[in-house]
Amino acid sequence: MNADSDTIVGISTAPGAAGIAIVRISGTESLAIADQIIRCNRRISSLAGNNMAHGFVADGNDIDEVVVLVFKAPHSYTREDVVEIQGHGGSICARRILSAVLRHGARMAEPGEFTKRAFLNGRIDLVQAEAVIDLINAQSERAASSAIEQLEGKLSDYIRTCYDKMLTAAADLEYSLDFEEGDLGDDYFRKIAELVENVNVTLEEILNTWEEGVLLREGLKIVISGPPNAGKSTLLNGLLGRNRSIVSETPGTTRDTIEEQSVLEGIPVRYVDTAGLRDASCTVEQDGVRRAKESIATAGINIRVIDGSAPLEASQKPEEWPNADHWLIVLNKADLGLVMRKSDFPVNLRCVECCLHDETGIKTVRDALKVMINISTGSTMPHATISERHRAMIQYAQNELNECMILLKQRGEESAAEAAAALRRATEKVGEITGHFYTDDLLTKVFSRFCVGK
Amino acid sequence: MNADSDTIVGISTAPGAAGIAIVRISGTESLAIADQIIRCNRRISSLAGNNMAHGFVADGNDIDEVVVLVFKAPHSYTREDVVEIQGHGGSICARRILSAVLRHGARMAEPGEFTKRAFLNGRIDLVQAEAVIDLINAQSERAASSAIEQLEGKLSDYIRTCYDKMLTAAADLEYSLDFEEGDLGDDYFRKIAELVENVNVTLEEILNTWEEGVLLREGLKIVISGPPNAGKSTLLNGLLGRNRSIVSETPGTTRDTIEEQSVLEGIPVRYVDTAGLRDASCTVEQDGVRRAKESIATAGINIRVIDGSAPLEASQKPEEWPNADHWLIVLNKADLGLVMRKSDFPVNLRCVECCLHDETGIKTVRDALKVMINISTGSTMPHATISERHRAMIQYAQNELNECMILLKQRGEESAAEAAAALRRATEKVGEITGHFYTDDLLTKVFSRFCVGK
Repeated sequence: MNADSDTIVGISTAPGAAGIAIVRISGTESLAIADQIIRCNRRISSLAGNNMAHGFVADGNDIDEVVVLVFKAPHSYTREDVVEIQGHGGSICARRILSAVLRHGARMAEPGEFTKRAFLNGRIDLVQAEAVIDLINAQSERAASSAIEQLEGKLSDYIRTCYDKMLTAAADLEYSLDFEEGDLGDDYFRKIAELVENVNVTLEEILNTWEEGVLLREGLKIVISGPPNAGKSTLLNGLLGRNRSIVSETPGTTRDTIEEQSVLEGIPVRYVDTAGLRDASCTVEQDGVRRAKESIATAGINIRVIDGSAPLEASQKPEEWPNADHWLIVLNKADLGLVMRKSDFPVNLRCVECCLHDETGIKTVRDALKVMINISTGSTMPHATISERHRAMIQYAQNELNECMILLKQRGEESAAEAAAALRRATEKVGEITGHFYTDDLLTKVFSRFCVGK
Repeated sequence: MNADSDTIVGISTAPGAAGIAIVRISGTESLAIADQIIRCNRRISSLAGNNMAHGFVADGNDIDEVVVLVFKAPHSYTREDVVEIQGHGGSICARRILSAVLRHGARMAEPGEFTKRAFLNGRIDLVQAEAVIDLINAQSERAASSAIEQLEGKLSDYIRTCYDKMLTAAADLEYSLDFEEGDLGDDYFRKIAELVENVNVTLEEILNTWEEGVLLREGLKIVISGPPNAGKSTLLNGLLGRNRSIVSETPGTTRDTIEEQSVLEGIPVRYVDTAGLRDASCTVEQDGVRRAKESIATAGINIRVIDGSAPLEASQKPEEWPNADHWLIVLNKADLGLVMRKSDFPVNLRCVECCLHDETGIKTVRDALKVMINISTGSTMPHATISERHRAMIQYAQNELNECMILLKQRGEESAAEAAAALRRATEKVGEITGHFYTDDLLTKVFSRFCVGK
């Protein structure tokens, strides 16, 4: 238990008109504060843990009719005494209850502070704490499924297994330092090297989930670009299954970049419809073209829509394709007869020929996108998708492990000591992933992503 | 208990990223459904009422880690078996839990259906049910305080007292019909008349709370109008204490009507800053002036801001003031020396002279507004503010009671029978306020104001 934990309070539900809002209090004074502000046929502090009571919050006047939930340490979210006050939703009630609790001695919780206490008090590790915010922020079922499995400890288990093996290897290696070279035999060091290699392979597998993790957490930006009047907005509307962009036959209709959220293959996607790329005369339109180019540069997947029924003008020639893997060429208006074909483009570029005005054409594009997404998310390890933070630490650890293995092969007293040091650094780094080791800066960074009240 | 209640489910918290979201289930199958989708170290249906458990919602795969609250009939919000599932907030978890519950046999709750069941099962009356949605929709503490008192039954008590007295009077009156005129003596009928009169006075007091009720529920629209460049936007920014309107020295800067929410004297107010009133040449500006005039016509309070340092041009002459009570004239720019004064306006118009560029000027206007608001809300009955529905029914009942009293004075067999009939109609109408009598249409109307999940 974290000794000096003052009592914190936060509103744990989203703001807005709704049936219920929850004010959550955690800390040693939770029950005492609840006793002071809740009128009930029994004292809140007299309730057993995991029990609840009906009453009124009053601080002078009555504020709200509520249900009060009592969780007693250590059987609570934070492992401290926790009181949850369920009142009416809307703009006022929860805020008034919060004020009453603050007036009676609690302080406002920082973002993620309840979960931070759950971590500091040892109920969950840091990877699980991160899963909480991933779960709340999930924009697709697949992202939520990945997060709940991380919260249940699947990723933590992989990491912890690596960590334990590294500890064993490190202990064996440190032990060897007390002996003369040759005393322990080749087998002794080969076994250590095998263990390190084994960990390295697992870390590599975990690392391969990063790309999917990024997609699940941050979503995929799919930018639709191309010359004016090629059918970009028609494609966006088709992919969304509704009319978002204004579609007209006047070239240059979409002057601003338009963004829309959707889900594809379980991945949250953000479609960006850009202004037509051409030598624009009007300033507003030039600005649109500039923003279109910025979007293209930051896209996860770029779709270039081209009117295939007419030859491409010189000014509309596609630029170089530095990331061919990320591009999809859509030759639209196949119904009018194509004068440009797949074969007019570099062979390594994905290209579909279709008519975007019918559902089959939209489906062709959607299927091509699905293939592209599944290639990016083809990790072999199910149920674990690491974040940027995990990736950086794993890469650091891998470098140290590789160093360690090279040194182990060299043998000799000095290299054994260096190998042990590298292994120790790698072990600490892997320990930082689950929060076995942490700094205040690390915690600040992790929990700043949270909302208040969790 | 309402016999044929199927099991309903809804999300009871507001959507959005947040720590907690709640899915609420009510009806005979609640516990059975919970058993099917919740993995827990004990069966949910085996929990005692007012108890809770920690577990996972799973429907095939794990969906969320949750706390499950069990309320057993009749000790629940609806008086039916209720299960509340507290999962993670955000876009996905609550929706997935909802889907799982629906797949296992519940149906989606209609707006307000949980509260409707609380009413149908006799836990609360209709006035209290209406207080629930007033509480959720409250935009100020005063509105919330009024609603919580209504929820606690204060208004219901007033109404019920009237109703009981009317029942007594009606019974006495019906009883008299079996006797010859004169048999019961003058005193008998005088007592009935006194009771009816007494009820009528209470109903009148209740009726007087209507204006405050409207203000608390719907808020007060305060429209700021006047010639261009008089200081309207400066006043709005001052009243809000921040910069919302674009203030410039170019007349005609505010072309659109700008609306801002705030609270004054506990009343939610909506300030509307309008386009300057002048003979506009530009179409966009003409449109602004037209909209300004529409706003003025529907305002609760109108503030006319005038540059008092210059004579008013003929085209800017104030129009007739049909509702002088609702107008406040602000003669701005007193710092430049006023050439127009209070005395230039009709004596029955409120008028302040000030400089809106300093805080004292803003305070002068705010104080004048507070006085105007307190005049509108000066009811003598604390803790009860009736709605439009209540008002219509009370007015109907009062008409019948007045009719009844006239007939009682006439005496005679026929008039006694008519008086009894009028009293019966009045009684039924008052009974409709608390839902002692109701129709499906009435319930539909009351509960359509609710959100789903309450």
